Amino acid sequence: MIVVMRIDCSQDEISRVANRIEDAGLKAYIPHGIGHIVVVGVVGQPVPGLRDALESLPGVEQVIPVSKPYKLASREFHPQDTIVDLDGVAVGGDEIVVMAGPCAVESEDQLFTTAQAVQAAGATVLRGGAYKPRTSPYEFRGLGEVGLRLLAQVGDETQMPVVTEVMAVEDIDLVAQYADILQIGSRNMQNYVLLDEVGRTRKPVLLKRGMACNVQEWLLAAEYLLVQGNEQVILCERGIRTFENYARNTMDINAIPIVQKLSHLPIIADPSHATGKWYLVPPLALAAVAAGADGLLIEVHPDPDLALADGPQSLTFDNFRLLMSQLRPLAEARNRKLAIPRARVKP
Amino acid sequence: MIVVMRIDCSQDEISRVANRIEDAGLKAYIPHGIGHIVVVGVVGQPVPGLRDALESLPGVEQVIPVSKPYKLASREFHPQDTIVDLDGVAVGGDEIVVMAGPCAVESEDQLFTTAQAVQAAGATVLRGGAYKPRTSPYEFRGLGEVGLRLLAQVGDETQMPVVTEVMAVEDIDLVAQYADILQIGSRNMQNYVLLDEVGRTRKPVLLKRGMACNVQEWLLAAEYLLVQGNEQVILCERGIRTFENYARNTMDINAIPIVQKLSHLPIIADPSHATGKWYLVPPLALAAVAAGADGLLIEVHPDPDLALADGPQSLTFDNFRLLMSQLRPLAEARNRKLAIPRARVKP
Amino acid sequence: MIVVMRIDCSQDEISRVANRIEDAGLKAYIPHGIGHIVVVGVVGQPVPGLRDALESLPGVEQVIPVSKPYKLASREFHPQDTIVDLDGVAVGGDEIVVMAGPCAVESEDQLFTTAQAVQAAGATVLRGGAYKPRTSPYEFRGLGEVGLRLLAQVGDETQMPVVTEVMAVEDIDLVAQYADILQIGSRNMQNYVLLDEVGRTRKPVLLKRGMACNVQEWLLAAEYLLVQGNEQVILCERGIRTFENYARNTMDINAIPIVQKLSHLPIIADPSHATGKWYLVPPLALAAVAAGADGLLIEVHPDPDLALADGPQSLTFDNFRLLMSQLRPLAEARNRKLAIPRARVKP
Amino acid sequence: MIVVMRIDCSQDEISRVANRIEDAGLKAYIPHGIGHIVVVGVVGQPVPGLRDALESLPGVEQVIPVSKPYKLASREFHPQDTIVDLDGVAVGGDEIVVMAGPCAVESEDQLFTTAQAVQAAGATVLRGGAYKPRTSPYEFRGLGEVGLRLLAQVGDETQMPVVTEVMAVEDIDLVAQYADILQIGSRNMQNYVLLDEVGRTRKPVLLKRGMACNVQEWLLAAEYLLVQGNEQVILCERGIRTFENYARNTMDINAIPIVQKLSHLPIIADPSHATGKWYLVPPLALAAVAAGADGLLIEVHPDPDLALADGPQSLTFDNFRLLMSQLRPLAEARNRKLAIPRARVKP
Repeated sequence: MIVVMRIDCSQDEISRVANRIEDAGLKAYIPHGIGHIVVVGVVGQPVPGLRDALESLPGVEQVIPVSKPYKLASREFHPQDTIVDLDGVAVGGDEIVVMAGPCAVESEDQLFTTAQAVQAAGATVLRGGAYKPRTSPYEFRGLGEVGLRLLAQVGDETQMPVVTEVMAVEDIDLVAQYADILQIGSRNMQNYVLLDEVGRTRKPVLLKRGMACNVQEWLLAAEYLLVQGNEQVILCERGIRTFENYARNTMDINAIPIVQKLSHLPIIADPSHATGKWYLVPPLALAAVAAGADGLLIEVHPDPDLALADGPQSLTFDNFRLLMSQLRPLAEARNRKLAIPRARVKP
Repeated sequence: MIVVMRIDCSQDEISRVANRIEDAGLKAYIPHGIGHIVVVGVVGQPVPGLRDALESLPGVEQVIPVSKPYKLASREFHPQDTIVDLDGVAVGGDEIVVMAGPCAVESEDQLFTTAQAVQAAGATVLRGGAYKPRTSPYEFRGLGEVGLRLLAQVGDETQMPVVTEVMAVEDIDLVAQYADILQIGSRNMQNYVLLDEVGRTRKPVLLKRGMACNVQEWLLAAEYLLVQGNEQVILCERGIRTFENYARNTMDINAIPIVQKLSHLPIIADPSHATGKWYLVPPLALAAVAAGADGLLIEVHPDPDLALADGPQSLTFDNFRLLMSQLRPLAEARNRKLAIPRARVKP
Repeated sequence: MIVVMRIDCSQDEISRVANRIEDAGLKAYIPHGIGHIVVVGVVGQPVPGLRDALESLPGVEQVIPVSKPYKLASREFHPQDTIVDLDGVAVGGDEIVVMAGPCAVESEDQLFTTAQAVQAAGATVLRGGAYKPRTSPYEFRGLGEVGLRLLAQVGDETQMPVVTEVMAVEDIDLVAQYADILQIGSRNMQNYVLLDEVGRTRKPVLLKRGMACNVQEWLLAAEYLLVQGNEQVILCERGIRTFENYARNTMDINAIPIVQKLSHLPIIADPSHATGKWYLVPPLALAAVAAGADGLLIEVHPDPDLALADGPQSLTFDNFRLLMSQLRPLAEARNRKLAIPRARVKP
Repeated sequence: MIVVMRIDCSQDEISRVANRIEDAGLKAYIPHGIGHIVVVGVVGQPVPGLRDALESLPGVEQVIPVSKPYKLASREFHPQDTIVDLDGVAVGGDEIVVMAGPCAVESEDQLFTTAQAVQAAGATVLRGGAYKPRTSPYEFRGLGEVGLRLLAQVGDETQMPVVTEVMAVEDIDLVAQYADILQIGSRNMQNYVLLDEVGRTRKPVLLKRGMACNVQEWLLAAEYLLVQGNEQVILCERGIRTFENYARNTMDINAIPIVQKLSHLPIIADPSHATGKWYLVPPLALAAVAAGADGLLIEVHPDPDLALADGPQSLTFDNFRLLMSQLRPLAEARNRKLAIPRARVKP
């Protein structure tokens, strides 16, 4: 940490800063001044709250953190890529993993036909929502446990691992009983109570980026999971909020290589939520993989105009097949290949 | 709801739209076309999901909702202002209510001296955090129940109602036992499970705006509370996320008159979180009241550089007194007055 | 400037950084390392381009500028407030200066009745556009020189200084002949060719903030004017672009005290463009003055629904009078008063 | 255009709206009401200013434009793709056109070696700035006419068309004399005087997106060029301003398929300015082409740490070669191929 003092600070103010640093058990290092500005370097392990404290002292111009506030999520701490294993499907390795399915589980028939269709086209993980966060209290909020049971059943029948969102601490055990991956949604990325408790499970987690959170806050949310001992974290970029409102959100493709530079965690992309319009999903899906994403999360529905949620962003079976046929050569051009659907080895 | 068809839509596509509307129990109204564009009007109560469904149909250019998606929170439904009564302190009436105190409860001494100081300067509600949502898992997260007890005790001693944040469904009963107002923080504004459950209590709620949520989403979050029967909702603007990063957030003063036009709920402002810098707090506090805010939420600390959280944005006692001395004539210039600290009438 | 090296940088990389600094005529100062990180301090006057160069060198983690990139606009360089004198109306002193008039000059009658009405209500400067930047090429783009002549004529008749926008270098002489203040619009805040040339005039300048520019970029645009010798610069906050789209822009009230801390230049606010809706103009105008603005720029039209530009954000005469009656006590509550319309002393 | 009246509007207010529409020479169409809301349809060619006028009338809730505000730029008006021909290099057809070169022209040697290197690696157009818009007045602003001459000379020697920015109306003739493509920079996208005049030339134009402009405003800026008769417009996405500040801007990849849906104009991407960091350029370049971009604009410098502008975002020759070797198979996977450097046929 570097403390930059005001040009006109007094010797007393410098001493007060230095004392505060030493009170915190760290070492203050005061060079003779860089230009007209006195810089105080702080040596030692980060102390929570110290930055704020120093910023509040008189004479201080700014406090610049040099080390990153996350540790377990950082590539410095853990240089090699993390690979999350989903019963034989590996996320974060050479293969591109496509997770697909309906926004919300609506019925056995809807889920089963969708699962078969996406698997036949090359998807390796089945997605589907049983608990849906909805902006309005009047919208469909999911089938709850009935939906979870359908997911587990169809996952078994098709031998696909299943990913579904968990919205509440009290649902974690139930969801974990049925699902292979616990998804934390965008609106809950900073629900720290939920992060703590999901971090205490040993289930793989899909952590969506909050729609107004920067990459550092996202990695700090991952840190909440990691610090509880859950190392199987997959990040998912799903669009951020900007002034441009033609599409629902702006897919932040920059974030893909940024995350890969800063962290060892695998990252996938969700072009369905990032755009909100089905015809934008294929180009954005291809772009994400071209930029280095380890996989995709895609909404597919047998009949989007009858969907109970997010119909306008869902691909039909035909459009999903078309996307997969474009994705295959593109992945190869990036020296990767699509993960192959395979029989799961359940413990 | 108005459905605008593409210029080149077919008669079949129009019929399919009309049928879907009538299947939903509504009436489709197809005028002869406005310009080259066919417009389909939809008459009747909103049907959840219908907008998405229509948008997914072929031939549809756009679907324009005409009625607002929230109802109980709207001024159309409830024209007169809601006044939330806090044991004698009324929020949303003629008086400006100032809620002040430390970001986090740290000790009895810290809380009690702060409460006395802010009350002497004119604050009427005591704020203080016992559960703190922190971006990093390594920061101080609050004293928990110990903090709640201190809040209740100091609130009793000073006869001030107490506001504090509740972060988790499982803490609601406990927090409600000690606090007079349940605060829902910015990061939890779209934690719908929490909104549902807080809506089931009969405690006044302070609903902070999500830092990337627009006014409509904020009013929809209030709708979650109202629909559960809790009508004592106070909105709190606390800054939104923008490209400008000199201050922590950009206080959206526009939102104050916008909310007052759209909704009957009282609205206060939190310039401490909106700016993150103590020297910006007074001008923004005054601006919020000038724009029509019903109150303020201000962080005050006996010694900001020793604060365990958010020191740089906390006012000292002296600075808080100075702000209050500026606020009084300003409130009068707007034909309002500061609420007077008074003995609470506990039931 | 502080250069932070990567943890794993080599001695060679450090030397290369130091050499580059010394090649630029500055002094590199290398303490023994702060934590595990080597910091190189750079002592001496800023050298253009050096930051970019250092950032491009291997082994460099980040380069942190410590001194501000603007100088003439900074309060450090020029501690006392700048007061811009407009023939007897002083902007930046104790008085609040209200500039009002139609968005676009449409006719002598429209301009003259508006000027009389706003002056009677307390405005001291007349605004009106003769050259209008319009998002669409099909909209009304102003009367050009005819409009300028009307402005000068009505300014003379009412003894009000006149502010109007200049959009092109080739129009500067003409506009300067008729106007008392040259306005640089939001879309041209980074039109550096225009800034250079307006900086070469000796007319007061009203520099609007670019709608996506941060405060630092805004002060750098002012620096372009100042460095050419024009010291009569008034800044004008007019709303920034954010995700919230109920109003046209988000008025950044934070920016008012931020600018006053960083710079000596006066700052006024334009709530008409910041909101785009007439009913939001009065609360935002009051908020801006409460936050410390030195004046306001307000659109007023005799018949907003007949306006050739920006009708929805224009106040009627009655609404403007009402605003002024609210503004007067509010200014006094902030220990300021409205500037009094007075006879100009033309040289 | 659809005018939605307030639920409680009077018959008089409806008549006033209808009269205003008919005064403008259009036809008002009033169905019996859709729900409780009266809708007034407006039939006929758009009338500038009418929307604002109607929005200002009493009783009006909102005015919804149904037709797009741009015409010549729209795909409805011009369904087939526009292909811009640059002396044998076609932008907007099957081929991917890579434009590369230094940010700023610094010397003959710098430009010539860079041109040779990028051409050898597969670039077909040479970029280089002679007039540089710089945020600070103290930075290097380009060699001006000397730079233009060097560009033309090196373009001739290497047989590459040349693209360079024009910042001022008075420079257009000069720049047009030397350059093959006139670039309008991000900061000038809404400099309408410049757009008018560049539209009057018959040179191909590269129109960069304003960093805070939405797609509609961008297409309206293109409309300014098209309406003057210049049909050779290439759009260039270069990142937008968001709250995320790890990279300089957020590349809006969504915009690529959105533009292709709304407009017939070719679109390329500039990952150098969109990211500001050289190591993010390759993944974003690949992503843009995967999403359907017709080309790329890439900054390359023989020695980025010696660059006079934008060194941190410039690729070295080696890194550019590596990118091109990744781009080739990726373009093929999207059924496109890289344009082949070829001898120009100058008229």
